Amino acid sequence: MKNFNFQAGTKILFGKNKINELANEVLRHSNRVLITYGQGSVVKSGLLDTIKSKLIEKEIHIEELSGIQPNPRLTSVREGIKICRDKNIGLILAVGGGSIIDASKAIAAGFAYDGDVWDFCTRKATPADALPLGAVLTLSATGSEMNGSAVITNERTQEKLPMGSDLLRPQFSILDPVYTYTVNKWQTAAGTADIMSHLFENYFTPDSGTDLQDGIAEAILKTCIKYGPIAIQEPRNYEARANLMWASSLALNGLTGTGKLIGDWATHTIEHELSAMYDLTHGVGLAILFPYWMKFVLNERNAFKFVRLGKHVFGIEDENPMVAANKTIDAIRDFFVSLGMPSKLSEVDIPDTHFTEMGKKACQFGPIGYFCRLNDAAVTQILEMSK
Amino acid sequence: MKNFNFQAGTKILFGKNKINELANEVLRHSNRVLITYGQGSVVKSGLLDTIKSKLIEKEIHIEELSGIQPNPRLTSVREGIKICRDKNIGLILAVGGGSIIDASKAIAAGFAYDGDVWDFCTRKATPADALPLGAVLTLSATGSEMNGSAVITNERTQEKLPMGSDLLRPQFSILDPVYTYTVNKWQTAAGTADIMSHLFENYFTPDSGTDLQDGIAEAILKTCIKYGPIAIQEPRNYEARANLMWASSLALNGLTGTGKLIGDWATHTIEHELSAMYDLTHGVGLAILFPYWMKFVLNERNAFKFVRLGKHVFGIEDENPMVAANKTIDAIRDFFVSLGMPSKLSEVDIPDTHFTEMGKKACQFGPIGYFCRLNDAAVTQILEMSK
Repeated sequence: MKNFNFQAGTKILFGKNKINELANEVLRHSNRVLITYGQGSVVKSGLLDTIKSKLIEKEIHIEELSGIQPNPRLTSVREGIKICRDKNIGLILAVGGGSIIDASKAIAAGFAYDGDVWDFCTRKATPADALPLGAVLTLSATGSEMNGSAVITNERTQEKLPMGSDLLRPQFSILDPVYTYTVNKWQTAAGTADIMSHLFENYFTPDSGTDLQDGIAEAILKTCIKYGPIAIQEPRNYEARANLMWASSLALNGLTGTGKLIGDWATHTIEHELSAMYDLTHGVGLAILFPYWMKFVLNERNAFKFVRLGKHVFGIEDENPMVAANKTIDAIRDFFVSLGMPSKLSEVDIPDTHFTEMGKKACQFGPIGYFCRLNDAAVTQILEMSK
Repeated sequence: MKNFNFQAGTKILFGKNKINELANEVLRHSNRVLITYGQGSVVKSGLLDTIKSKLIEKEIHIEELSGIQPNPRLTSVREGIKICRDKNIGLILAVGGGSIIDASKAIAAGFAYDGDVWDFCTRKATPADALPLGAVLTLSATGSEMNGSAVITNERTQEKLPMGSDLLRPQFSILDPVYTYTVNKWQTAAGTADIMSHLFENYFTPDSGTDLQDGIAEAILKTCIKYGPIAIQEPRNYEARANLMWASSLALNGLTGTGKLIGDWATHTIEHELSAMYDLTHGVGLAILFPYWMKFVLNERNAFKFVRLGKHVFGIEDENPMVAANKTIDAIRDFFVSLGMPSKLSEVDIPDTHFTEMGKKACQFGPIGYFCRLNDAAVTQILEMSK
């Protein structure tokens, strides 16, 4: 087990009607709030009105930034920073899924930075301060509600790059599973694949002596495998939505990565190239790519890790480790397909025309992945396998 | 899954030589520190000197409270409160195991309270404010390093009672597994039993829909079962000590209790009666009592929970749920015995003379336990089974 620091201090308010505690949480930080949201689902559901009335009741001043898109754009971030500065905002309240929270984190960091906020993504700067941030989550997927990471898309350069700092962890997040009842089958499946992908990224590392963390990751994976299909079949099943929601937060709040040098994150980096260019739903891209990444990196030296995953999560046993490992990868693919996820890029209309370019962009800061180092040619090869 | 709030904000600094980050962490809170410790092991090991020299180097003023005993006494707590007030202390730094941290929490709460600190244990008051607290952990057992609970013994009344508040969570805890190399076999075994007992308390509840939490608890239990025996056989095995140390914190930081109304905690309450009267090591008392509690409460309606535990943690399968449940309880007893723990109270020289009185004291605030409600007669019966 490697040395680590861990502090996941986000206050989680979980369950039905927790929105009733929102105004008090907001007032711990400020009485001037920027509410950020997306393209209307929180308007249609009435959630935005509920939130606004609860804040107005407590005389909290509200500004709004709407229209934040999936794969959130730098343009929205810049707009948000301007509002926060012009209107003397003291807290950003993100209402939505990971894209809204990610954009809000970038606004929070950009507000407190004199230079261009994109510098955080190009590694020219790291956040030294940030506005406080709260979230009301409406999609179980990214884990952004309990961590300090964000991924922003620069639409001009077609780059999708991560930024992060412990300063950007939300101060509080309201997780009411009922808000995810209206998430459709496709997005529920993509969200489940996203949660599982986060666990894979921290599971497949070269570290040893991390039984505890890997056991916790397996427990969360089993939760996804049990409840993902139930949530798709019965969208208003509270237990299924609740287990997925809490799984989403725990899968990427740092817990399963403790004691490890760093996660692999190659597959996420590759997926970001796809969704930067084609605006693909992140979880869908991951569901397609991950089993191909696994097939590509699997060898006789690292097969034991796939064998462990297969045994503990899918009950797969085989005397031959390579056979057991391949069965595990097939089980993961079968599970994603059973959720309704595609297994090839061609199914989501992504052509093979830019794979070489994507390989180069994915490796712009050097080789990617820690379980297995991948150069640009390897990335291109994985994309070819996925086509 | 029940509604919950969860915020385990303690900053964990985990690993070899993390003590080098101590002074900076301290200075985030104060430059006037009360160091609390026990009966000399941290003096003998040199850890206390190391800590003092690191603080003095940064010109931090130090006061000391030594001699805090296992099952920490109210007298020490009162002494600590007086020092903090007289010497204008801004942070308490607990160096030791759960007893030291628990006493320090009571000092932190008592400092900010005009009445008698024992009021927090008798439920006459709850902490409204507290001094900040840090910890340097030397024993993997109680989880006190990452939660807001403390158990204090009133030596005059022979009462051992809990108190707690989120205000009492340490601001930071330094967890260096190397500090536990010198923990002897007996204390290592008792600590492992203590960690497992905390998991049992939150596992055996009447809640449903908590697959995620129960799966995480099972993963931590498996970690204890794997690494407890290794740490006993090879006291300087870093991976074993590291896994137990992180397991200790995660077992009782609130995580496995999220989404549950409340843990059972009957067995802990009964054990507190034993150790208040006989000054028994807490984990030893729990190792003796827990399997008897399990046998007492097991019935056909709740057997499924024991069956799940047996299957997931010990690989026990049997068509008959009651048979599988009993095999699970036996496996737990066998494991504790394999660690060198006693299985009867008579083995630790506790006579059966006060069982009726203990039953009454354990139920002084009403029946105990939520998985199964126990009145004083039931508690006495469990003690009789354990004799």
